[in-house]
Amino acid sequence: MRAVDIIHKKRDGGELTASELTYLIDGYCRGDIPDYQMSAWAMAVFFRGMTAGETAALTLAMANSGDQVDLGPISGVKVDKHSTGGVGDKTTLIIAPLVASVGIPVAKMSGKGLGHTGGTIDKLESIEGFRTELSRERFMTQVNDIGLSVIGQSGNLAPADKKLYALRDVTGTVESIPLIASSVMSKKIAAGADAIVLDVKTGSGAFMKTLEHSEQLAQAMVEIGTEVGRHTAAIISDMDQPLGYAIGNALEVAESIETLKGRGPADLTELCLTLGAHMVVLGGKADSVDTAKELLRSQLHNGAALAKFKQFVAAQGGDEGIADDPSRLPSAPHSVEVKAEASGFVSAIEAEQLGLAAMLLGAGRATKEAEIDYAVGLTLRLKVGDPVNAGDTLAVLHVRENNETASEVAARVRDAYSINDKQPEERKLLLSVVTSSGVERYS
Amino acid sequence: MRAVDIIHKKRDGGELTASELTYLIDGYCRGDIPDYQMSAWAMAVFFRGMTAGETAALTLAMANSGDQVDLGPISGVKVDKHSTGGVGDKTTLIIAPLVASVGIPVAKMSGKGLGHTGGTIDKLESIEGFRTELSRERFMTQVNDIGLSVIGQSGNLAPADKKLYALRDVTGTVESIPLIASSVMSKKIAAGADAIVLDVKTGSGAFMKTLEHSEQLAQAMVEIGTEVGRHTAAIISDMDQPLGYAIGNALEVAESIETLKGRGPADLTELCLTLGAHMVVLGGKADSVDTAKELLRSQLHNGAALAKFKQFVAAQGGDEGIADDPSRLPSAPHSVEVKAEASGFVSAIEAEQLGLAAMLLGAGRATKEAEIDYAVGLTLRLKVGDPVNAGDTLAVLHVRENNETASEVAARVRDAYSINDKQPEERKLLLSVVTSSGVERYS
Repeated sequence: MRAVDIIHKKRDGGELTASELTYLIDGYCRGDIPDYQMSAWAMAVFFRGMTAGETAALTLAMANSGDQVDLGPISGVKVDKHSTGGVGDKTTLIIAPLVASVGIPVAKMSGKGLGHTGGTIDKLESIEGFRTELSRERFMTQVNDIGLSVIGQSGNLAPADKKLYALRDVTGTVESIPLIASSVMSKKIAAGADAIVLDVKTGSGAFMKTLEHSEQLAQAMVEIGTEVGRHTAAIISDMDQPLGYAIGNALEVAESIETLKGRGPADLTELCLTLGAHMVVLGGKADSVDTAKELLRSQLHNGAALAKFKQFVAAQGGDEGIADDPSRLPSAPHSVEVKAEASGFVSAIEAEQLGLAAMLLGAGRATKEAEIDYAVGLTLRLKVGDPVNAGDTLAVLHVRENNETASEVAARVRDAYSINDKQPEERKLLLSVVTSSGVERYS
Repeated sequence: MRAVDIIHKKRDGGELTASELTYLIDGYCRGDIPDYQMSAWAMAVFFRGMTAGETAALTLAMANSGDQVDLGPISGVKVDKHSTGGVGDKTTLIIAPLVASVGIPVAKMSGKGLGHTGGTIDKLESIEGFRTELSRERFMTQVNDIGLSVIGQSGNLAPADKKLYALRDVTGTVESIPLIASSVMSKKIAAGADAIVLDVKTGSGAFMKTLEHSEQLAQAMVEIGTEVGRHTAAIISDMDQPLGYAIGNALEVAESIETLKGRGPADLTELCLTLGAHMVVLGGKADSVDTAKELLRSQLHNGAALAKFKQFVAAQGGDEGIADDPSRLPSAPHSVEVKAEASGFVSAIEAEQLGLAAMLLGAGRATKEAEIDYAVGLTLRLKVGDPVNAGDTLAVLHVRENNETASEVAARVRDAYSINDKQPEERKLLLSVVTSSGVERYS
């Protein structure tokens, strides 16, 4: 077998076999197949696509390229959740204790964030004392004991994906649905879950800008899961504006606590209930999504979800007191109000611009080595559809110093808001659900 | 400017500017742009193609990447000739003295061959004493004195093309018409000719297997020439069987001498007259191709072409006596006759197989370092359309030793001949002529 022949075959529209794809990935990992052949192959895939069988074989080859986590010691159906990422996305902080509270074991490994704000791990670490580096044994024991643990990703999960993704990033080959799908799924499969619920964002603030593309990506990921025997479902949700009102690590923990108390923003609550309900169904704890959703909603209102959150924080060494008194979370010394300059209705909010604003304040990492300031970030006061008068506060910045950077960021946030005379049409948050039976759009 | 943005632009169907292409080629040559970005870009070009303007800009960037030969010291219109390569192709040996004999200055730099048989330089070096390494000054002086010189390619012509071609070869990106066209033309342009006649082969023995693809390639090359101000014409000729009867270095020199005496094979003579006639027209020594062809034909029969060949060989130190007595050329000690096993008509000859046979006998280089045996090769006795009886000689091998290799090669040559009951339809040698006015198929 030669890499150049495999490139030719894909270039000319052929279907690669599992052994050809394994040869390619294994050779690339070992360094026998050079970057310049992989990038040419990736570009051929960009143009020719891959069948469901090819995509699944590629995914397995990448999942097999490093450690594979064995969650066998944990009893029950382990259901994982993955989000394609968005601004203000704190769903894991809510969903993990919520579904654990109804008996779904949650054994989650999460990466540190790069970009707008921190990842789940960074958000959790904004809680005083919270430890995310537990041994694999302690992690499993905790899940068996209290049904829930979230730790930093350790070991060497899908190194082939890591290497290939870095190459795609600099060779114009990121935007290929089968390559994106296999990248996400290879890590999820190596992480050992029995079933996977995917939170696929769509819109101006998301990686996939149109509903059609988001649905195609979701289908590709669900097909991979089905091919490799992991039940998979995907929810497509709108990311045309940030989720909830808080952007920034400790600020998002506080908003998550409010949501676990049943008092969270409507959009965030609804998305968490829907994703959680699919996890409950895949985990075998409910027969229908609707039943599961009602079950979870009651857990928000009867205190069970919050209790599980406190138990979880305490088990990992964190200050559980923050659940009753969120003022114990890190807070920034200064705040800056961003005022509207026109009247009308908020017609759009550029989520990516707000994410960038949060990063500029120190809430996210521009490079792997950068330090995060857990306290800083921003809180939106108005969202799309809200009426506004000139002089009203659109958002509040939480800053370390009220300096020139803060003023620049305030201007950026102001620019991210569009204000229009006419009230915009209401946008749906939940757009489609994709399972192995197909795509279903929410009515 | 960033390479990744240029890749994206081409991938998405955009037209690259001259400065983007120059940035890419210059950066690649300097080593600032890595192989993995160039191969991804080349694959995007494979799928998206390039406009005439892009192809010309790429060609110029590659031509400018190294030395540029200044043929200014030579008076007259310098016309170069290039062949896309074929088995038994000795046209340069004939055309160069033929057109020089009517006053077209021929200042040709040629590479050593890799593959079936040697290149023009190897063929000339099979003449005792012939020197192909002349200084640039001596080369120009000789062209001014006798109208003709052929030397080995020296200096650093189009190094970007060399580097890019090596990369394309291992990344499945060879078969792109704009990339092939710019590769050929960048070297021709750097070599300094005012006008270029291209001999584009088509058919089973050629790189381009169909007439349509060959015409597209020819058009792309003519467009480049036109864009950069070098008059260019291309002749598309059949390479479904070898040209002439001789394959092997000294054997081809002998056949060339016969052709210069007006007694050469019909196909070889016709192709040389046609290519030569276009050179004469581009060089301003005749008003029409037909007039030029008659002029050249008379030079074959009146001894003028042969006289120029002798003068050329003598000027470069070679034994001009070979022109009157070709037995002074190197000859192999043994010959092996390849006999037909069936009766009927020769319906096809696989040119590539015969080229490989010649290489196995020692007539060509499998690697850059290999030594060539000038004496060995093969002489065809029968060509497509000829009647044949079982036991007739199809071809004769000229070998160093009559050993097992010789028997294996004989079997390979026998297999390259197809014999059929029915006489095949006659194939035309000359198929199309491509100029800046368009493609014209020969009737």
